[in-house]
Amino acid sequence: MKETRICIIGGGSRLWAIQFFKDLAYNKMTNGTVVLYDIDHKAAMNNVVVGEQTFRVNDSVGRFKFIAEDNLEKALEGVDLVIISIEPGNIECRKGDLLLPEEYGILESVGDTTGPGGIMRARRALPFFFEFARTIKKVCPNAWVINYTNPMTLCTAALYKAFPGIKALGCCHEVFHTETFIAEKVSEWFDVPVPDRREIKVDITGVNHFTWVTGASWRGIDLMPRLKALSEDPNTYKDLTEVAKKRVEEEKWFDCDHIVALSLLRDFGALGAAGDRHLAEFVPFYLNSDEDFWRYGVVRTPYKWRVEEDKRKKAKVYNDEELKAKLSDEEGVDILRSLMGDRTLYTNINVPNEGQITYLPKGRIVESNGFISENSIRPIISKEPPLAVQNMVRRVSDIQDMTLEAIWNNDEKLLFSAFLSDPLVNLNRDKAKELFDKMLVASQYKQ
Amino acid sequence: MKETRICIIGGGSRLWAIQFFKDLAYNKMTNGTVVLYDIDHKAAMNNVVVGEQTFRVNDSVGRFKFIAEDNLEKALEGVDLVIISIEPGNIECRKGDLLLPEEYGILESVGDTTGPGGIMRARRALPFFFEFARTIKKVCPNAWVINYTNPMTLCTAALYKAFPGIKALGCCHEVFHTETFIAEKVSEWFDVPVPDRREIKVDITGVNHFTWVTGASWRGIDLMPRLKALSEDPNTYKDLTEVAKKRVEEEKWFDCDHIVALSLLRDFGALGAAGDRHLAEFVPFYLNSDEDFWRYGVVRTPYKWRVEEDKRKKAKVYNDEELKAKLSDEEGVDILRSLMGDRTLYTNINVPNEGQITYLPKGRIVESNGFISENSIRPIISKEPPLAVQNMVRRVSDIQDMTLEAIWNNDEKLLFSAFLSDPLVNLNRDKAKELFDKMLVASQYKQ
Amino acid sequence: MKETRICIIGGGSRLWAIQFFKDLAYNKMTNGTVVLYDIDHKAAMNNVVVGEQTFRVNDSVGRFKFIAEDNLEKALEGVDLVIISIEPGNIECRKGDLLLPEEYGILESVGDTTGPGGIMRARRALPFFFEFARTIKKVCPNAWVINYTNPMTLCTAALYKAFPGIKALGCCHEVFHTETFIAEKVSEWFDVPVPDRREIKVDITGVNHFTWVTGASWRGIDLMPRLKALSEDPNTYKDLTEVAKKRVEEEKWFDCDHIVALSLLRDFGALGAAGDRHLAEFVPFYLNSDEDFWRYGVVRTPYKWRVEEDKRKKAKVYNDEELKAKLSDEEGVDILRSLMGDRTLYTNINVPNEGQITYLPKGRIVESNGFISENSIRPIISKEPPLAVQNMVRRVSDIQDMTLEAIWNNDEKLLFSAFLSDPLVNLNRDKAKELFDKMLVASQYKQ
Amino acid sequence: MKETRICIIGGGSRLWAIQFFKDLAYNKMTNGTVVLYDIDHKAAMNNVVVGEQTFRVNDSVGRFKFIAEDNLEKALEGVDLVIISIEPGNIECRKGDLLLPEEYGILESVGDTTGPGGIMRARRALPFFFEFARTIKKVCPNAWVINYTNPMTLCTAALYKAFPGIKALGCCHEVFHTETFIAEKVSEWFDVPVPDRREIKVDITGVNHFTWVTGASWRGIDLMPRLKALSEDPNTYKDLTEVAKKRVEEEKWFDCDHIVALSLLRDFGALGAAGDRHLAEFVPFYLNSDEDFWRYGVVRTPYKWRVEEDKRKKAKVYNDEELKAKLSDEEGVDILRSLMGDRTLYTNINVPNEGQITYLPKGRIVESNGFISENSIRPIISKEPPLAVQNMVRRVSDIQDMTLEAIWNNDEKLLFSAFLSDPLVNLNRDKAKELFDKMLVASQYKQ
Repeated sequence: MKETRICIIGGGSRLWAIQFFKDLAYNKMTNGTVVLYDIDHKAAMNNVVVGEQTFRVNDSVGRFKFIAEDNLEKALEGVDLVIISIEPGNIECRKGDLLLPEEYGILESVGDTTGPGGIMRARRALPFFFEFARTIKKVCPNAWVINYTNPMTLCTAALYKAFPGIKALGCCHEVFHTETFIAEKVSEWFDVPVPDRREIKVDITGVNHFTWVTGASWRGIDLMPRLKALSEDPNTYKDLTEVAKKRVEEEKWFDCDHIVALSLLRDFGALGAAGDRHLAEFVPFYLNSDEDFWRYGVVRTPYKWRVEEDKRKKAKVYNDEELKAKLSDEEGVDILRSLMGDRTLYTNINVPNEGQITYLPKGRIVESNGFISENSIRPIISKEPPLAVQNMVRRVSDIQDMTLEAIWNNDEKLLFSAFLSDPLVNLNRDKAKELFDKMLVASQYKQ
Repeated sequence: MKETRICIIGGGSRLWAIQFFKDLAYNKMTNGTVVLYDIDHKAAMNNVVVGEQTFRVNDSVGRFKFIAEDNLEKALEGVDLVIISIEPGNIECRKGDLLLPEEYGILESVGDTTGPGGIMRARRALPFFFEFARTIKKVCPNAWVINYTNPMTLCTAALYKAFPGIKALGCCHEVFHTETFIAEKVSEWFDVPVPDRREIKVDITGVNHFTWVTGASWRGIDLMPRLKALSEDPNTYKDLTEVAKKRVEEEKWFDCDHIVALSLLRDFGALGAAGDRHLAEFVPFYLNSDEDFWRYGVVRTPYKWRVEEDKRKKAKVYNDEELKAKLSDEEGVDILRSLMGDRTLYTNINVPNEGQITYLPKGRIVESNGFISENSIRPIISKEPPLAVQNMVRRVSDIQDMTLEAIWNNDEKLLFSAFLSDPLVNLNRDKAKELFDKMLVASQYKQ
Repeated sequence: MKETRICIIGGGSRLWAIQFFKDLAYNKMTNGTVVLYDIDHKAAMNNVVVGEQTFRVNDSVGRFKFIAEDNLEKALEGVDLVIISIEPGNIECRKGDLLLPEEYGILESVGDTTGPGGIMRARRALPFFFEFARTIKKVCPNAWVINYTNPMTLCTAALYKAFPGIKALGCCHEVFHTETFIAEKVSEWFDVPVPDRREIKVDITGVNHFTWVTGASWRGIDLMPRLKALSEDPNTYKDLTEVAKKRVEEEKWFDCDHIVALSLLRDFGALGAAGDRHLAEFVPFYLNSDEDFWRYGVVRTPYKWRVEEDKRKKAKVYNDEELKAKLSDEEGVDILRSLMGDRTLYTNINVPNEGQITYLPKGRIVESNGFISENSIRPIISKEPPLAVQNMVRRVSDIQDMTLEAIWNNDEKLLFSAFLSDPLVNLNRDKAKELFDKMLVASQYKQ
Repeated sequence: MKETRICIIGGGSRLWAIQFFKDLAYNKMTNGTVVLYDIDHKAAMNNVVVGEQTFRVNDSVGRFKFIAEDNLEKALEGVDLVIISIEPGNIECRKGDLLLPEEYGILESVGDTTGPGGIMRARRALPFFFEFARTIKKVCPNAWVINYTNPMTLCTAALYKAFPGIKALGCCHEVFHTETFIAEKVSEWFDVPVPDRREIKVDITGVNHFTWVTGASWRGIDLMPRLKALSEDPNTYKDLTEVAKKRVEEEKWFDCDHIVALSLLRDFGALGAAGDRHLAEFVPFYLNSDEDFWRYGVVRTPYKWRVEEDKRKKAKVYNDEELKAKLSDEEGVDILRSLMGDRTLYTNINVPNEGQITYLPKGRIVESNGFISENSIRPIISKEPPLAVQNMVRRVSDIQDMTLEAIWNNDEKLLFSAFLSDPLVNLNRDKAKELFDKMLVASQYKQ
């Protein structure tokens, strides 16, 4: 395999980057250079050290060279693969995203993808992505680009907006969690050990974080009848408030039992294929109050914890044990290897709609299955979900398109159209405008 | 002109039927027979008398013969034109439509087109329309059919569902009110007497009662810039609570100042083309409370008044003066004359989408301009409104389609999908289900 | 009615311009100025005289002022209506269009719309239209533009290509001839005097000169069954060679009996709605030899006659009698009056596809019915013809689109793609290339 | 792996069935039962013997059981996989398909997919496929069905027409030949040994036998620029008449040098992805005469040879050596293994269009890449070829759709519409009708 040059934009970050180092170390076939670019250059330099440590710990010294580079153009020169995982604006910016809506009675469980918070975060993030795309166009137009940043659909769309010829892909592991959840059910249903999530074949459709499973099978067995039965069983919806409270206590903000996902299957005919905290934000009937929400066993991630966690992550020193590589659930390196011709990969992808999502306009960034092979990512046609699901997804995708156009054209009137159209915004019109104006200010101030 | 045989289904009703008699009397060119069919046969017989009185008063004795017929097949035999204007179930049925949602905090201003009330009313009405269509197919497949019954889109869709070859048209005068409103503005803007609403040319698009003006002109002058300026003028939105209160006092439930229509223009780029009380029901941001709603000068029609009004209408005896014919704003007779080849008519029509509404699927009942001539009704392509408007209209149209399919297949699960998708239903899911179940019972009981 | 300023591009031409003067004179309501622009300025000046003579003869002196102007920008200044009717290149250019294909066994009956001749004529004409559109954009962007020049679809498309906001319309009277033909049949069938062609209502669909009638009625009577029966009657196809010979002898090149049109109805289910000499050029099965063609009673217009006719027209002196105005079949002035708000018009129009032709891509110039009123031209949805017809029309429209793109981008390879795709080009590939190359030279030489 | 029950309809045939036996024997993982069904039951019984011989020769006695069954319902009972490879009607039927058109100057190189011969062959074949589908629906609705019979698109479409829920797939190896051709070029271009055709990645699009390559790569290297250069090199088109003559002499009817494929790339921008003898039949500019055709090095398969070859095949006795299994280029067994969950396969597939071919209507049988895995065949979106190619493919697909509808409804008028629309039919209309009528008789007589 030929040498690969990888640039990580947001290379100073901790969570995602370090897992990627471990995955690189685990896959012995790859070698080359990792260029870390970050607005916080010091953070990037720290990660050079962690990168080298990771390879040393895993007996791979020298297989990958680590470089920190603080000029974007230079960082991108000659690269084969760009990975983008940034925090747009500092963590304090999220205060306005999350707390202002709450003052108006709008609860967000995540607030980075959709809802008032998602729209404002997009407003901060997209200008960066326009810039990334323009630089990629100039410096490395043939590089493959993987985006992990949220709002993922909009950030990926922004890349294509500024450079339509870009070879970019949005990646997300939420569907993997749904596969794991189904794998656990398979274990129960068939009295077998929990199979690897890759053994669960799902037909998926939608937009990122509002993805849907329309078909699922394991070893050729159609699992949809069992999932439907589960979704119609009243026991599935027993009150999980105590579970939720415990999760709050233990700060397990990301855990869920996929009850919202099942509730969507019950009422609309397709299974939600993301964590419940994501799904709940795209419709107006789960987040009416924390009490209502907790009944599903899901909890909202508090802004306060986010700030503290951010500090913790930045201060973190990794010991060798923590950097020992093993097979992870992230697919970044698998995608890299597939694009380099070393293997093929059948997985969920976020790319412009060429028709794979038949009920959405062409060009929108959509999530479907796809096939990745040497220098090629091709979407697979998704099966059509029930009309009610199409309708909800289309609503979300239209709002995303309005948001993109509004930010691209710096059109605040249009941005408010998008805001007022959002499923979580059930205020009267003037209250909504008041909130919007406040959030604009809060968002601008921080930038 | 050849003799025309007209059957009025719901021929015992008062409001619409008697205006139609007057219009018939006013248009001296037409002659023939009017067959009045009504479940309440006595009411139909009463209207025979009123019909004859109307023609006598207008010096047209004998030009039209009036017959009451209580067998539907017989009533339809040999007719050229069928007009449908019924109350599905008795007026008491509306109690559940209107008062149950209110208990859950969902306010409806009309409740016969959309929202929980509209869906339940559809559930009562559609089986009648399936039956009408089947009988028309059998007895008079070539007759033209005009439907005035609400929910108009769904009732018209039901006719096509049961008899795809039917030549049916949904008619509504809401767009005329918008034209009249614009005509009044023209008078202000250009210091001229208020022009006839037919002088205002509007490009319209949408579904009935959620129709939109994308272009308006008078004598070749583009009025959209003035309408937009009006919509952006803060004075337009001064508090009209006192106006609303007076309307309540005077029982002027149907009046409005088109402030909601203008508010939609401000926020979404197209003018609402129906009365405010209709428009407000299709989006979640006007009917949050009566206080909020009154600020726009609009009031909700109370159930109680409806019951009393129904009684009053039924008991009403018409004096000759009231039956004197003059040019009315209803177009029923103009449509009749156009279809018979006596004139042509350019107006708004509700027919299956052949592509006139480019952003909705083919086959849906949609509202656009159309051209009516001898034995022909042809839709005119509507201009595309902004994406935000397309999105809202599509949402509504999809819900209508789900409702139609659910009622056709007697599928309560799907009906709940539609219900939960409705813009007015902002309850948490379990509350929504509770309300739905109660309304199902209330609706069934009366039938 | 307000004063109207009209610019005629190709104002020195004879055939169409002088009919337009007569129509203007006939319609007493209009008044204003006619600006005649022509590359041949002398010809334009001659027509000023004829214009003035026309108005004098018709007792309308002074109602319209006539001006010749040899600067295009100046000619267009302040105009309300632009009419374009030009000969792209001189008449000698048509030699290559018509005679070269004949050398290769490809017979063209008209050769100005489609086939090798149509493509080459487009290549000469379109650069003029790009220029017209750019000047209109600069000088009078709100003017309405009517194009009569062939290839009409492509010339009109060229206007929109260079100025997408142009308000342009392609006009053609071929459909009127079909209406007249049907009117004559109505006279036979119902034993009545031949009705005015405007009494025949036709549903039309397609692209100009390859238009199709999918429905026809007269006084509400569906004429399609009778037309179908006629198309299936073997007598309809009796040998008309003698008729054809006589037409050649009498130089009646434009006459036909609509036998090709009926033959298309027989074999494909919709009636051709243009003269047979036009229809025959769009399919490969009529023009195999003059003998074959003559059997339908149609003859090809010889190049030689065209040259002579061109001379005759230019030399022609009009006597007063010839300029007496009466109701003509051209609709130019009716369109003008409708756009000025003086009447409305329901007729066939050629405008960009907004969805009126459901089986063709949006944006293509297509022919359908339309409704013209004050400052507004709106297409009416056409009914879908049988798939075989859709297929033939789509083929033609795709070739037109390739031709437009090829000329716009000066892409000879793409132009050859279009050429080789043309239904009349049934040569082997290398012969086709040889002919194409020769025609390119012949076409270039003359320009 | 679980036991698999396979039914071969046309199980008495030689060419394809025996290759399948060898492939089954080669893939040691599979086991189960093969049921051979054939109208010619004796032939099926003979193949039982050959099947057993094949497994004996390959040291696999008993791994698969062979049964001949002469009742279709019984043959299909309990099967997992149905393979259809039949000759519709006896070989003499092809006489009319091939020789009658020749009398009218229409040359067909294969005559089983398209052109007059293809249409008539479809007319014979499709009723069988309607019957197969109905029986499958009744007996084994969940079985996977692979069709190899030509006209492959139409036979597969017929299965879906009669049983829309069928899980059927059309298979063809023509694309493999194109891959092999490109592999040979790769060897030349990069001075490497000829790579396995599976190393050549192609993006394909179209309908079977009229498939197109829009992208090709090897080890991540984009091969399209080299293919385009080759297609534009005049040397590519040197006269191959002598090669063709030698092929005639040696009866190498199926060989070609892909010159027609390259010629299409030159003129239309995408590479033909089937043998030249197939490609040439879909357009009117290669088969004008044998002399013209031979210049490309391709020859037409004579009817006479087909008859003799048919006899030879039926009489053939296989010696053990001939039945030794090795990796073959047919993918039947690979598909089987993939569907059974034993591997995955990325290959070209022929299934109903769900949107993978964006320029064709949904539901048509189209050829694209696809991904086959356990109990799942999913199409991959194809890239759009140039408009000229879309146009040609659409024409062909529309004709196929008309042919299917005509045969399904027994509508000879519509069948003639399809016939007259065929690219090879360049006769005048009456001659075309004459030929059509004769072919109808010839085709009927034999059945």
